[in-house]
Order: sequence, then C-alpha cells, then structure tokens
Amino acid sequence: MSPRPAETRQLILDTALRLFEERGYAATTMRAIAAEAGLSPSNAYYWFANKDELVQAFYVRIQTDHAERVAVILAGGLPLTDRLRAVEHAFLDVIGAYHGFGSAFVSIAIAPDSPSSPLSETSAPAREQSLAIYREVVAGAAPRVPEKVRDLLPELLWLCHLGVTLFWVTDRSPGQERTRRLVDATVPLIGPMLRVARLPWGGAVVEQVRTALAVAMEPR
Amino acid sequence: MSPRPAETRQLILDTALRLFEERGYAATTMRAIAAEAGLSPSNAYYWFANKDELVQAFYVRIQTDHAERVAVILAGGLPLTDRLRAVEHAFLDVIGAYHGFGSAFVSIAIAPDSPSSPLSETSAPAREQSLAIYREVVAGAAPRVPEKVRDLLPELLWLCHLGVTLFWVTDRSPGQERTRRLVDATVPLIGPMLRVARLPWGGAVVEQVRTALAVAMEPR
Repeated sequence: MSPRPAETRQLILDTALRLFEERGYAATTMRAIAAEAGLSPSNAYYWFANKDELVQAFYVRIQTDHAERVAVILAGGLPLTDRLRAVEHAFLDVIGAYHGFGSAFVSIAIAPDSPSSPLSETSAPAREQSLAIYREVVAGAAPRVPEKVRDLLPELLWLCHLGVTLFWVTDRSPGQERTRRLVDATVPLIGPMLRVARLPWGGAVVEQVRTALAVAMEPR
Repeated sequence: MSPRPAETRQLILDTALRLFEERGYAATTMRAIAAEAGLSPSNAYYWFANKDELVQAFYVRIQTDHAERVAVILAGGLPLTDRLRAVEHAFLDVIGAYHGFGSAFVSIAIAPDSPSSPLSETSAPAREQSLAIYREVVAGAAPRVPEKVRDLLPELLWLCHLGVTLFWVTDRSPGQERTRRLVDATVPLIGPMLRVARLPWGGAVVEQVRTALAVAMEPR
C-alpha cells in the first residue's frame, strides 16, 4: 500500500531536516534527500521545488505546532506577562528538537537576500502565523493592554521573540536552559513598559517606539 | 626591499577579507590566501595560524578604527544621546566597506561553538575594545547619567549595538541607509529609559534589567 500524499510530504521534510543536521544545509542536495527517503527525485521535486521550500515548510510546521500548544493558554484571560511567558516557553518546547541544525538555518536565514530570512517576502506566511499568536497574546490579556500600544505591541513582542530565537541558536547550555532564564528575566519588563505608556509623557515615547518599529519592519 | 612585518600582516588580512567576499569564507583556504598575497604558506601561517585568527584580527581592526574615529566626540561633554548617535554612525562608517562579506562573517559567528562569536572567549580582546567605547560614552556624558544605571548601561548599549550590527548585515538598502534610520529612531529612547530609572518605582526596573543583562552576558 503506498503512503498517503501528506505522509510522503512529511517523510521528505523529516528526512531533509535530519540530513541538514547530519551533513549541513549547503552540502545536502534535493537528490540526496529523495534517495534517503527512498523516493525518486521527481517524486521529491513534486512536493518541494528546492531547499528553500523545505525551509519554509519547516517554519510553517513550527508555527503550527506553536499555535496548537498555546491555544489553551491564549483562550484563558491571564495577565499579559503570564501569557507572554507561557508562549515563549511553549515555543522553546517546540523548537527544542531542532537545536542541532538551528545554527545551520540561521546561517542561511541571515544572508541579506535569503528567501529563508524571517523578514523576507517568501517567509510571509510563516511570519503571519507567528504574528497572529502575538496579536492574540495582546488582544486577550486581562487586565486589558492600554489602547495606545495595543496595535504596536504585537510586532514589538514578535521582534523580541526573534531575538530570543537567535539567542537560543547560540545557546550551548544543557537543554538551552539559559534561553529560558533569559525569557524569565525579560518578560517582567513588559509591566514597566506599559506603565510608562500611561504616564503623561508616555505618549511621545510610544510614538518614538512606533517610528523605530516601522523602520525595523519595513518590507525587504 | 622586502616589506616590513606590519605590512606583511596587513597584506595577508586585506587579501583574506577580499577572498572571503569573492569566494565565501568556507571556500577560502589559508593556502589560497598565501598564494593570492604572493607569499609562501609558511610565511602566512607565521602571522595567522588559521582563519579564526584572521577573523579576530578583522574584529580588532574594526574596533581600533572605531575608537580612533570617536575619540574627538567622546572627549567633548555632549549629552548621552548625542554621544551614542555619533558613535553608532561612526561604526557604520567604519564597517561600510565590509558589507559584502558581512553576512559570511555572521554565518560563521552565529554557530554556538564558534570562536568568532562576538560573545566567545576568543573574541574577548575585540569585545573589550568595543565595550570600552560604550563605557566612555556613558562616563563622559553631560548631564551625568544617573548613578544607579551607570555601571549597567555600557553593557546594555553594547548589546543594542550588536543588534544594530546584525540589522546592518541583513540590510539591503543602498549604503545601508535603513540601518542609519534605525539608529536615529532608537537612540532617542535612551532619554525615557533614564527618566524611568529616576522614578520611585524605577529602582526595581533597573534591577530587573540587571538580571536580564547578567543572563545575556554570561560567559559562553
């Protein structure tokens, strides 16, 4: 009995991720992935035209897993810091298995013209999935987030999340526990940030953050 | 007449940086660098035992250039934001010529066990040179920086500076003008940060930042 299409696609992706870790991203060809998965090259190419598409499928898989894991937390009306902390730890749970080739991916993703960059046009679907989580983190918080930062906070938190991901990639501590300590130490800073937004001079600060965020998030 | 030792060392470094840009870091061997520089391999190896040492020499060159360029600015008692803005722009002036292989270096530097990581033990000399600039930025500011943040601010600014450098690497805008706009949009945020530190509840925030910073700066 031949495997169902979804299983073939998953097999190719799993095989690719394993080979990227074992041989490095650059050294792994589509043909090698097909051979290792016991498929003809044309069958593999039917599912993924190139390695960039595999990376995108990897991103989408991670984001889908992350969204599933945080659904229950996000449904409950916890304070913003609790929601954010839980979301970051859930993300570290999801990506934990992939630490071995995390640095290979970052090396690819960091090149200015890389389609695998989290800020690229190509990465828009995975990025939108991830941003949707941070929008939900903000939208469902209780007590409510001050209105004047409600629209900009998701993107700001998402950028911080990228920073955490980068820290994780370079984290050599057992089980990357150091990244978890970084999350626990930085998440409480969200409270004072919101407190500043409510101060008489906070409006100007919010506008300055908005300006900086607009530059950081400009399409590439 | 044979070149002076310092000239030979500089010739090897210049040749290496050019080849890293043209052929990529991984594909460039020490032997190829020696050949391209018109030297025997043993002569090249006398100066640099391996490519990691070339990267470190590159870091030190950049930091030395940066320190020279900002000496006049740092000698004058300008406000903190003006000093910081000038220091970041001067850094972008220094590294402008190296954008072509910036991403190659980051790919190397980002690996968890890379001696070229800016946070590695090996990079300590270049890192100390850079941190010294941010210590001076803070120490010589007028008006003076509040005492309770004076010791932690240099490391915090240095980490932000690493973030700017990473942004620059992935910046595809002409002359990386987008990174300059990011600097101009983020530097003014230092004012509100210091204002928070002076508030009655600012002490707790400063301590939380100190905790986060300690995790981020732990030796690797």
